Amino acid sequence: MTDFTVTITPRFYETDALGHINNAVIAAWFEVARASFLESLQDGDARSPENWVLASLKIDFLAETFYGSDVIARITGARVGNSSLTVECEMSQGGKVTVRGTAVIVHLGQAGGSPTRISDALRAKLASL
Amino acid sequence: MTDFTVTITPRFYETDALGHINNAVIAAWFEVARASFLESLQDGDARSPENWVLASLKIDFLAETFYGSDVIARITGARVGNSSLTVECEMSQGGKVTVRGTAVIVHLGQAGGSPTRISDALRAKLASL
Amino acid sequence: MTDFTVTITPRFYETDALGHINNAVIAAWFEVARASFLESLQDGDARSPENWVLASLKIDFLAETFYGSDVIARITGARVGNSSLTVECEMSQGGKVTVRGTAVIVHLGQAGGSPTRISDALRAKLASL
Amino acid sequence: MTDFTVTITPRFYETDALGHINNAVIAAWFEVARASFLESLQDGDARSPENWVLASLKIDFLAETFYGSDVIARITGARVGNSSLTVECEMSQGGKVTVRGTAVIVHLGQAGGSPTRISDALRAKLASL
Repeated sequence: MTDFTVTITPRFYETDALGHINNAVIAAWFEVARASFLESLQDGDARSPENWVLASLKIDFLAETFYGSDVIARITGARVGNSSLTVECEMSQGGKVTVRGTAVIVHLGQAGGSPTRISDALRAKLASL
Repeated sequence: MTDFTVTITPRFYETDALGHINNAVIAAWFEVARASFLESLQDGDARSPENWVLASLKIDFLAETFYGSDVIARITGARVGNSSLTVECEMSQGGKVTVRGTAVIVHLGQAGGSPTRISDALRAKLASL
Repeated sequence: MTDFTVTITPRFYETDALGHINNAVIAAWFEVARASFLESLQDGDARSPENWVLASLKIDFLAETFYGSDVIARITGARVGNSSLTVECEMSQGGKVTVRGTAVIVHLGQAGGSPTRISDALRAKLASL
Repeated sequence: MTDFTVTITPRFYETDALGHINNAVIAAWFEVARASFLESLQDGDARSPENWVLASLKIDFLAETFYGSDVIARITGARVGNSSLTVECEMSQGGKVTVRGTAVIVHLGQAGGSPTRISDALRAKLASL
């Protein structure tokens, strides 16, 4: 697929006493990347974060991330199931890959609703990437 | 008034690269103290965080707060206006006062609603402290 | 092993607009549980968060977590490798399991140092649980 | 002075259950604006967040801030004391002013050091804005 990227400027308060970006912040940034990616699909239904719920998250921390230079979060894969979407993300800083993550999100018919089949329109958009 | 206190155990991710608790976390802890205080009043209306909105916040940082020992957040004052409540808070760690804060919160008739007079029942409870 | 538990009181600011605790906060709470667990081992070396680095994190979100009642984070497993420790955690709220997580942390000889074999003393403590 | 602005894209996890951006996040964004402003002065000494400590923070919340459209954080004033710098900030979203804040930061000779007079070079830069 054509990569989708988001640039994230680390914030000082996102560091911890070890002097680098705290690991829980990386989980939060992955949410930023997923939300931007879904938004970019310009599909009414996919667009709203309220229509998705996170089922699982896997993050590998390959290298530390620091305050002071931008991070590129790249969506490197999106595999459609019935109601689920598996989104892969890679983050890099200064040309070095620092994080690899996989999230499984589930499509809901409405905020707080039950898992609902991902529409053909959205499948077509994802297939065209 | 009789002081109301909440004990907060600092979390490692709340530190920043300066090695102490980040200042924005202190603003968040103050919200924890206010919410617990309102909850303690056992007034149906005051209880829900959704019935209040923060109008202003003033925090003086008197000393650094560190990871590794508990913080006592003490509500030291609560002055009732018409729809507003001014809440004062002092935080200390290891017997040393580290933070003094004042928040003005406004009572709403319902979540997202307009400022609404604080009930006589709640005024009575606050006066009895 | 004998379970180690930490009680976490959800904070209002940890919710998001979906009305439940945000998923990145769960990653942060897992760090709280791990840090308390390592602290409980009373091993000089294991104690300091600065002597460990997170290599990977896997979280399954089984049910939503809400503001308003305590969460019990339970360390349900700890497997020792050479320099790595795999820590398993389960969170529950109101008797319902909401989260299952696995973290691989790596022991460093010193803050910012290289992976270093976990000491026999710490292995013995972990084996005795 | 010539206004200095930073654009902040609200993140979904920065909302809370009231459906808007949580107030403690605003305190954090103000840190982002201050850090960018100090960085923009291109003064070796002012540049590093480690050379400053926050002494006090005052924030007036004039209107809610929402997820979904950018926030402009504008530094509207910077008054130099001996070792202190008072920084004023205004945030707006969709053309509406939502936040006004004032922070007093203190210049340290080195990370963790004591208050130190702000250099003439930095005073000159601030005066030229």
